[in-house]
Amino acid sequence: MQSLPGFRDFLPEECARRNYIFARWREVARRYSFVEWEGPPLEATELYKKKSGAEIVDQLFNFTDKGEREVALRPELTPTLARVVAAHDREFKKPLKWFSIGQFFRYEKQQRGRLREHFQLNCDILGEAGLAADIELVALCIDVLRAFGFGEKDFVVRISDREFWTDFLREKDVPVDRWDGLLQAIDKFGREPREKTAEKLGKLADPVFTTLETGGKSEKLGKFVDGLRVFGLADFVSVDIGIVRGLAYYTGIVFEVFDRAGKSRAVAGGGRYDNLIAQLSDGAVSLPALGFAMGDVVLGELIQEIPHVCQGMEKAIANDRKIDIYIVIAKEERRADALKQIQQLRDRGFHVDYPLTPTKVARQFQAAEEAGASLAVLYGDEWPQLKIKNMTTGARWQQHTPALHWTKLA
Amino acid sequence: MQSLPGFRDFLPEECARRNYIFARWREVARRYSFVEWEGPPLEATELYKKKSGAEIVDQLFNFTDKGEREVALRPELTPTLARVVAAHDREFKKPLKWFSIGQFFRYEKQQRGRLREHFQLNCDILGEAGLAADIELVALCIDVLRAFGFGEKDFVVRISDREFWTDFLREKDVPVDRWDGLLQAIDKFGREPREKTAEKLGKLADPVFTTLETGGKSEKLGKFVDGLRVFGLADFVSVDIGIVRGLAYYTGIVFEVFDRAGKSRAVAGGGRYDNLIAQLSDGAVSLPALGFAMGDVVLGELIQEIPHVCQGMEKAIANDRKIDIYIVIAKEERRADALKQIQQLRDRGFHVDYPLTPTKVARQFQAAEEAGASLAVLYGDEWPQLKIKNMTTGARWQQHTPALHWTKLA
Repeated sequence: MQSLPGFRDFLPEECARRNYIFARWREVARRYSFVEWEGPPLEATELYKKKSGAEIVDQLFNFTDKGEREVALRPELTPTLARVVAAHDREFKKPLKWFSIGQFFRYEKQQRGRLREHFQLNCDILGEAGLAADIELVALCIDVLRAFGFGEKDFVVRISDREFWTDFLREKDVPVDRWDGLLQAIDKFGREPREKTAEKLGKLADPVFTTLETGGKSEKLGKFVDGLRVFGLADFVSVDIGIVRGLAYYTGIVFEVFDRAGKSRAVAGGGRYDNLIAQLSDGAVSLPALGFAMGDVVLGELIQEIPHVCQGMEKAIANDRKIDIYIVIAKEERRADALKQIQQLRDRGFHVDYPLTPTKVARQFQAAEEAGASLAVLYGDEWPQLKIKNMTTGARWQQHTPALHWTKLA
Repeated sequence: MQSLPGFRDFLPEECARRNYIFARWREVARRYSFVEWEGPPLEATELYKKKSGAEIVDQLFNFTDKGEREVALRPELTPTLARVVAAHDREFKKPLKWFSIGQFFRYEKQQRGRLREHFQLNCDILGEAGLAADIELVALCIDVLRAFGFGEKDFVVRISDREFWTDFLREKDVPVDRWDGLLQAIDKFGREPREKTAEKLGKLADPVFTTLETGGKSEKLGKFVDGLRVFGLADFVSVDIGIVRGLAYYTGIVFEVFDRAGKSRAVAGGGRYDNLIAQLSDGAVSLPALGFAMGDVVLGELIQEIPHVCQGMEKAIANDRKIDIYIVIAKEERRADALKQIQQLRDRGFHVDYPLTPTKVARQFQAAEEAGASLAVLYGDEWPQLKIKNMTTGARWQQHTPALHWTKLA
């Protein structure tokens, strides 16, 4: 039997890589004073329909549960966030800076960098309408990637502004009910044949193409980049008015993060969605909001592509996996003494291993090495003296038991 | 809209409690040299049927996916473990000591301490048939609970041996196909009316009741307790031959952990399942194995009931939530200088917050206090001097900017 298509088993090595990613996500979010929360992996299907329309259901792992409820494995976190914040609005002072690390699901054809599940870091700021929040959020996104060792030569944050395009459409007297379709057509520019985009845009094709090709002017985006310059992060961003993002609910600054080589899908994306919480809560709570999500699958591929980033990860993982002490039991008569010592060492926080059954001494030293033990401590003929070997330097010495004055090495 | 019945939202406080539990689980497992892994939350329904029979489906969140596959949200980890180990058997030296922290699901009536999802720590040892592995596993289980501050007055590990009962049934010439039913009847002793158990046991009722009431003699269980005595952990266990555990696949030592007050459901349970991997892999791989699972819901209730354990958690959480520095911007003209400093501090690992928009100084100090900041650093008229307040002691001083010689306080 195998795992389901598009689902991963995390054997120890892959699990260590996953945890390495989680640890950096969590650490940098906390440097930015973001607070962790989490929602359930299963939600009412209605929650996703309400946000994205009935078509979303085609891409969901959805089903009817034994209580006749329509439910779905979550494809994203934002609807849950809106639900939770609407329900608990009064309990929290604004602005909220919240992050979450969890698994998400979608039923779709498998492709490179596209599984049926992945983990995401979600970071959101709620209750702050000003541009300072957009700058703080994008700075966080950049610093998360910097924490892995990526530099400005490795990735770029493409920044745009939905308002730029809604202002544009308003100016051209386009009725509001056509905006979504036109924005989606603009979003696809460069990714589908020009004629197809032109057809969708109709008489707007010429001015849109001109704007996309000349770059368009946006005072807000200028201020935004200036804000990142104060943080010393301007080199990581590039204004790209062609970024619109497919999702209809964005209302302001939007951004997507790509590898500079342009080989991969977006590693992260997000933006401002000031109307969504009101929409999802039927107007009960209205809060300006913005956020981004970063997925572990594309990020993992990117890590593998940049040698020093990958080496940094493998080194950190190897270090993290190491145990402190391997207890070598050379004489079975000493096993009880050894076990007593092992318990004392573990109680004081040492990571300790030993052979569960009588084992040749050479094999025990091999196990000590494979476990990356700092010290091997041998219980044998010399007892109550212990033979100790520093597994890194090879130095050997003897020491009287109990070695209770040892303090945690890490 | 609400979360589905039996599913939890983890708002920041609850998420911090969950993470506190996860951190202790992970730390103690690693002290014991257990290595982390994880499986997918969705599996083929067949995997669970194969282990537990078709009746299990009634308790699953199962459905047919869009590819006509019968799938289920995982109710437990052991079948996934067997699947993964059978597929990768040759890649790993035995014994394996593996642990995992993940979410599990079951569709059943909601009751106290019983939701439709919970998180579990799973710890398993594979490839070791000897009693030393059983002792190591139970020692780990005890030390996990000790790491929360629970003592031998708070919980007890009830130990039994399936083999004691299978030997008993063999001695009485009971045909093997009746064992499962009889073992389940014995498991229910004391939890259902005596007459009902007697009826199920038939002519075995008298000898079984006598054995249960006199305790039964087991050399293996004696050795097992002696083994825990070497670790100094014998006071945490109590032999209770009445523990059989409902699941059919256990083959040796089994155990369940309860609060001493006897008010709650089992906080953990496990045992040896030497035949399961062969059964689930259709005989492809045969490995002796044993493991336990501990759930976060019952554990969370137990933590709440023991005051010093609960205080320990709340104190650790409050400490963990604290940020290092709150930057007070008293003059908006100084915002850019402050932001530059904030970026440098965060880059060096400090947890830093500041007001995103112009805010009264008193409110900023209040925010600093609420965030548990160690220092408040004020950018104002005194610039390039900074006014600094130690938020714990109340001490105040001035210091020239940039304060780049600061090192991480934590």
